[in-house]
Amino acid sequence: MNKLYEASTAEGFIDFINMQDLEQEAEKVIPKGGYGYISSGAGDIFTYRENERAFNHKLIIPHVLKDIELPDTTTEIYGETLTAPIIMAPVAAHGLANVAAERASAKGVADFGTVFTASSYASCTLEEIRAAGGEAAPQWFQFYMSKDDGINRDILAMAKRNGAQAIVLTADATVGGNRETDRRNGFTFPLAMPIVQAYQSGVGQTMDAVYGSSKQKLSPADVAFIAKEADLPVYVKGVQSEEDVARALDAGAQGIWVSNHGGRQLDGGPASFDSLQIVAEAVAGRVPIVFDSGVRRGQHVFKAIASGADLVAIGRPAIYGLALGGQTGVKQVFDFFKKELEMVMQLAGTQDVAAIKKAVLRENRYM
Amino acid sequence: MNKLYEASTAEGFIDFINMQDLEQEAEKVIPKGGYGYISSGAGDIFTYRENERAFNHKLIIPHVLKDIELPDTTTEIYGETLTAPIIMAPVAAHGLANVAAERASAKGVADFGTVFTASSYASCTLEEIRAAGGEAAPQWFQFYMSKDDGINRDILAMAKRNGAQAIVLTADATVGGNRETDRRNGFTFPLAMPIVQAYQSGVGQTMDAVYGSSKQKLSPADVAFIAKEADLPVYVKGVQSEEDVARALDAGAQGIWVSNHGGRQLDGGPASFDSLQIVAEAVAGRVPIVFDSGVRRGQHVFKAIASGADLVAIGRPAIYGLALGGQTGVKQVFDFFKKELEMVMQLAGTQDVAAIKKAVLRENRYM
Amino acid sequence: MNKLYEASTAEGFIDFINMQDLEQEAEKVIPKGGYGYISSGAGDIFTYRENERAFNHKLIIPHVLKDIELPDTTTEIYGETLTAPIIMAPVAAHGLANVAAERASAKGVADFGTVFTASSYASCTLEEIRAAGGEAAPQWFQFYMSKDDGINRDILAMAKRNGAQAIVLTADATVGGNRETDRRNGFTFPLAMPIVQAYQSGVGQTMDAVYGSSKQKLSPADVAFIAKEADLPVYVKGVQSEEDVARALDAGAQGIWVSNHGGRQLDGGPASFDSLQIVAEAVAGRVPIVFDSGVRRGQHVFKAIASGADLVAIGRPAIYGLALGGQTGVKQVFDFFKKELEMVMQLAGTQDVAAIKKAVLRENRYM
Amino acid sequence: MNKLYEASTAEGFIDFINMQDLEQEAEKVIPKGGYGYISSGAGDIFTYRENERAFNHKLIIPHVLKDIELPDTTTEIYGETLTAPIIMAPVAAHGLANVAAERASAKGVADFGTVFTASSYASCTLEEIRAAGGEAAPQWFQFYMSKDDGINRDILAMAKRNGAQAIVLTADATVGGNRETDRRNGFTFPLAMPIVQAYQSGVGQTMDAVYGSSKQKLSPADVAFIAKEADLPVYVKGVQSEEDVARALDAGAQGIWVSNHGGRQLDGGPASFDSLQIVAEAVAGRVPIVFDSGVRRGQHVFKAIASGADLVAIGRPAIYGLALGGQTGVKQVFDFFKKELEMVMQLAGTQDVAAIKKAVLRENRYM
Repeated sequence: MNKLYEASTAEGFIDFINMQDLEQEAEKVIPKGGYGYISSGAGDIFTYRENERAFNHKLIIPHVLKDIELPDTTTEIYGETLTAPIIMAPVAAHGLANVAAERASAKGVADFGTVFTASSYASCTLEEIRAAGGEAAPQWFQFYMSKDDGINRDILAMAKRNGAQAIVLTADATVGGNRETDRRNGFTFPLAMPIVQAYQSGVGQTMDAVYGSSKQKLSPADVAFIAKEADLPVYVKGVQSEEDVARALDAGAQGIWVSNHGGRQLDGGPASFDSLQIVAEAVAGRVPIVFDSGVRRGQHVFKAIASGADLVAIGRPAIYGLALGGQTGVKQVFDFFKKELEMVMQLAGTQDVAAIKKAVLRENRYM
Repeated sequence: MNKLYEASTAEGFIDFINMQDLEQEAEKVIPKGGYGYISSGAGDIFTYRENERAFNHKLIIPHVLKDIELPDTTTEIYGETLTAPIIMAPVAAHGLANVAAERASAKGVADFGTVFTASSYASCTLEEIRAAGGEAAPQWFQFYMSKDDGINRDILAMAKRNGAQAIVLTADATVGGNRETDRRNGFTFPLAMPIVQAYQSGVGQTMDAVYGSSKQKLSPADVAFIAKEADLPVYVKGVQSEEDVARALDAGAQGIWVSNHGGRQLDGGPASFDSLQIVAEAVAGRVPIVFDSGVRRGQHVFKAIASGADLVAIGRPAIYGLALGGQTGVKQVFDFFKKELEMVMQLAGTQDVAAIKKAVLRENRYM
Repeated sequence: MNKLYEASTAEGFIDFINMQDLEQEAEKVIPKGGYGYISSGAGDIFTYRENERAFNHKLIIPHVLKDIELPDTTTEIYGETLTAPIIMAPVAAHGLANVAAERASAKGVADFGTVFTASSYASCTLEEIRAAGGEAAPQWFQFYMSKDDGINRDILAMAKRNGAQAIVLTADATVGGNRETDRRNGFTFPLAMPIVQAYQSGVGQTMDAVYGSSKQKLSPADVAFIAKEADLPVYVKGVQSEEDVARALDAGAQGIWVSNHGGRQLDGGPASFDSLQIVAEAVAGRVPIVFDSGVRRGQHVFKAIASGADLVAIGRPAIYGLALGGQTGVKQVFDFFKKELEMVMQLAGTQDVAAIKKAVLRENRYM
Repeated sequence: MNKLYEASTAEGFIDFINMQDLEQEAEKVIPKGGYGYISSGAGDIFTYRENERAFNHKLIIPHVLKDIELPDTTTEIYGETLTAPIIMAPVAAHGLANVAAERASAKGVADFGTVFTASSYASCTLEEIRAAGGEAAPQWFQFYMSKDDGINRDILAMAKRNGAQAIVLTADATVGGNRETDRRNGFTFPLAMPIVQAYQSGVGQTMDAVYGSSKQKLSPADVAFIAKEADLPVYVKGVQSEEDVARALDAGAQGIWVSNHGGRQLDGGPASFDSLQIVAEAVAGRVPIVFDSGVRRGQHVFKAIASGADLVAIGRPAIYGLALGGQTGVKQVFDFFKKELEMVMQLAGTQDVAAIKKAVLRENRYM
């Protein structure tokens, strides 16, 4: 445990009704600087707020007499059956929320039965993460590239050695957004970043310094480089337009990750959900689509899948579960989303994930 | 009276100006768990709030010089003349609001002169309800099916024996919505459900357990089954789309009930009023349409009828009237809607219900 | 002075910046029941609020280099030159605001130099009103018809004898709206209504009783009757649609008054300003158009004229001026609107009222 | 220093996160009357509020894999290279904010490296302003014309003698807007206006008197007069429509300045940003476009340039910086905008200002 930063040591069952509860409770146990880093958005938090509000732009039509019972949330990716089309988003430094860090979150996610995406800026090594989740647990690796390709090769090799099934290239954070809460809190990372220690120690760094140490000048060539070096599917994360779909796929991406980084990067841009359909139409089924940013309800998962996502990634809620309940809390958060999704599926008359994909949402004309 | 749940025993005239008053006063006399169950909506209560707000999506144009005086609110259904096109929606467990339960509400509704829809989850027997309302009072029966068709036959026979003129199959609640207020209150039903006692005792059950005991896997075959067994018109309740109109009518439904269960089931779906015109255009006059969810004003009744409804059902307001004034209070609530409707009819230049149906609402471009 | 209702006796200069100030100050000097009657709207006050908000639906484009200086607000009607295209709307019972009642308001309006529309429900006789304003002052008479045509002939003769240049048939209040504030306050009229005393004493009556004593069953024949009996132009007040323009003009109306009665009658209908352009297109210049409801700024007057109104009527603000400053206060209110209108005309590049009528407003796409 | 008006004497580094901070802190150091004059908008401040809110009407699409690093904010105008496409707007009486007045602001702007637009109503002489900024600093002169052309010739000669590279004719303030805060504060100018002393002393004058002393009757002939007398490019400031673009360019304007005077003139008109694209399409690249009103973020600068502006002018924020930090504070404000703009450029995948101009914003359908 870092002496100056006293993260939670909680482990065990959490009592909560919804994700708003969880966020409120988490604020009480996560040190202020860490909570500010995790919870806040960029600038005037317009885009941050729109992320969640945007789900009301499309409406789920309840359907009746559809002969539905016990809907099935399972889905498949790379030969793995996931408990639900809900995966763990890459989030830096789980150690900010709980001293057990990614060891606990990877275990909770594995117990639930879905993909854990390990962040380059994790507080644990990939070996620790893999050991916690178990060799059978599906795991992807989120990559912040070094400016040095030798280091990049080493990190990719490490990820592959530790079972990564895909590489997620975060491309929307080549500089940090204007995260004013961090500046008000004078926040610097209190924890090490062992995975990227070859180019970034982490400890005592501001976010701007962290982003400054990684590669800004990302280009299609980087996608090709990663695909070749890792020989794994590469997701480009941060895609919100047709143009970027074309650039990413032309460069060899085998997955598209629609995200605005949880409203933490460019304020004044669209809600991630509002970009999803645009991206999905451009992808046209050629590669899988992962969606994140603003997901707090099972109905959000449903709407994302009905709008073209194959998988929906959860970030902050899982971290709040980690802070309050360790691995148990993380699993509870995924269980919450699954349970709400099942309810929505039943009421919307969709027996399985394939049926959700065919569901037609109704445009909300009154927003 | 249930010893642990002290429902109101009020009977007599209530002093109120509008339904907002009534709700506020009702909260003071209904025990917290019961009030939470009755009043609350699902999830983030987006859909619940939209239900009432949506009436502002269409505007009534006042019309002048139309030679109107003393507008006539009466309407007919199945040969009965109703005082107004306003009927009692099925609401579970009136005993939560008043110890006189459905005995009082059925009497108040009969005194007003309209249809009482008895819920499967009523706190009284159908015999008691019929005795209270009187044999001449029009009564429909709302059905939550058992998983056992023998029980279903028995219940339908009971309904028919007690004068039901139509069966309302609630199809939008095959599982309970995420009713967080009930979970926060730790609410369980304090009262018995005598009508469905063959498959559900009611007492001490959570809502999830109640819904779990009835049939989830509703299909068109159930509509056909009911129609055949009861030999009565079957309304499918919870229809919000063209697709469901087609499925229900193809299955033999002889009525469509547009509803989102008062915003208590699927949050993130459309306001019920926003679905009404879509449904009405699909029905195209083939069968009667009942509308509910969010009605709090005479202008809402007018807008619903002008948008295609034949009858408008009132739920929570009547229950608040029951809590505060017993049968007298229930009748006062219906009188309130009738009086406001008359005022709107006069100002909109519509002499009777047929004229309301021809009224053209103006789309509100500024919501 | 009525002993139980102590209206203001104020006379003299008022210090105010805008109409919001005036309303706040007026609340302090008008007895509660009277203030509630004057200020409030119907039902959920949706339409009341929309009345003012709707002016933001269209935007005035400032225009530069238009060679404008000292814009001219004068306009003509029936051979009279008015100081500005702003007239006094008919408002019942000015005695609620000031013991000097219509004697003061008619004088203030005459001093400003525009039309005073006397209400049938005025607190003074038409003789008193004419004496106060002076024979040269333009005056119109607002008519609430009796159910007895003999009485109607007498009242019209009285109006004509007292110099009325036009008759305004209020057609949108054949019953009272659901004015809940009046019911909460238990408000009854504390003052006599001398003009209509042949059918309605006024004193001690509720609004519902007042409206009930006048004629509900207005029809095109009434327009024809008034036009014939009075041999004066008849305005139909309360028109908000093409259909009603046609009905009124076919019946012989020689003016159209767009209004929703200040949001006091039918809640759930459109803002008056949103109906203006529709009505103006239907009128197509055949007769003059008066507009009221929600006008609180010079820019509102400008927007109404640019949307088709010939004259804009002011109600509540003038009554607040009357309460706080008697005839002086009333004139100050009209001066306020004129001064703001001049500023807007200068900045919008419109030298005179004819230029305002040609101004093109920009649709606000973002409401 | 004026004895009755104690302006700030601050000089040095300010600690702030964003412009909202700066405004709040500035309120503490600027005397009430001066702060009211600087900060407030006209009438109901609808247009004032829309100015900032309107930037959300268009959304910046983040773009990835664009091979961007260290974006370049420089731009050129009249052969000068500016540090960023951000210039100082003309603001009257900097002496209200800081005793060092335009001497400090001109120096801060010159240190940043961009255009300083001197107001006709400056608290310093043009000689003082030029001496402070230095001869090499680009400077424009904002002109409020006298009614006397002899005086106008003298002022233009003075501007030219002091290095003005362009003349900005403010055409949207031929009378003052309804600035109610000034009237509530009883605000009169406490300071002299040396540049226009030949027609306006400034001291002790209300804003209405100040505007009244300058020329109201502006016309295309004035543009031609200035262009001829000064032999410099003339910008017409206050243009918001196609019609005015045509009138200004026909008159010989060589620049268009889109502005609504910071929401201080005509309330009820469009947000300046909402007019920008309309104006830019009408200008069609024939002359440079400057944009102001509501700019508080780097993303606003980006959106304005992507919508057709060549330069973006900053007013109030620079004055707040002046109040809190003198010349240092002014430069910090410009640095703030540049830094945020660089971040946005990086995240939007735009290497330089030319790339911003080609960026396609996404219409926000949900406002």
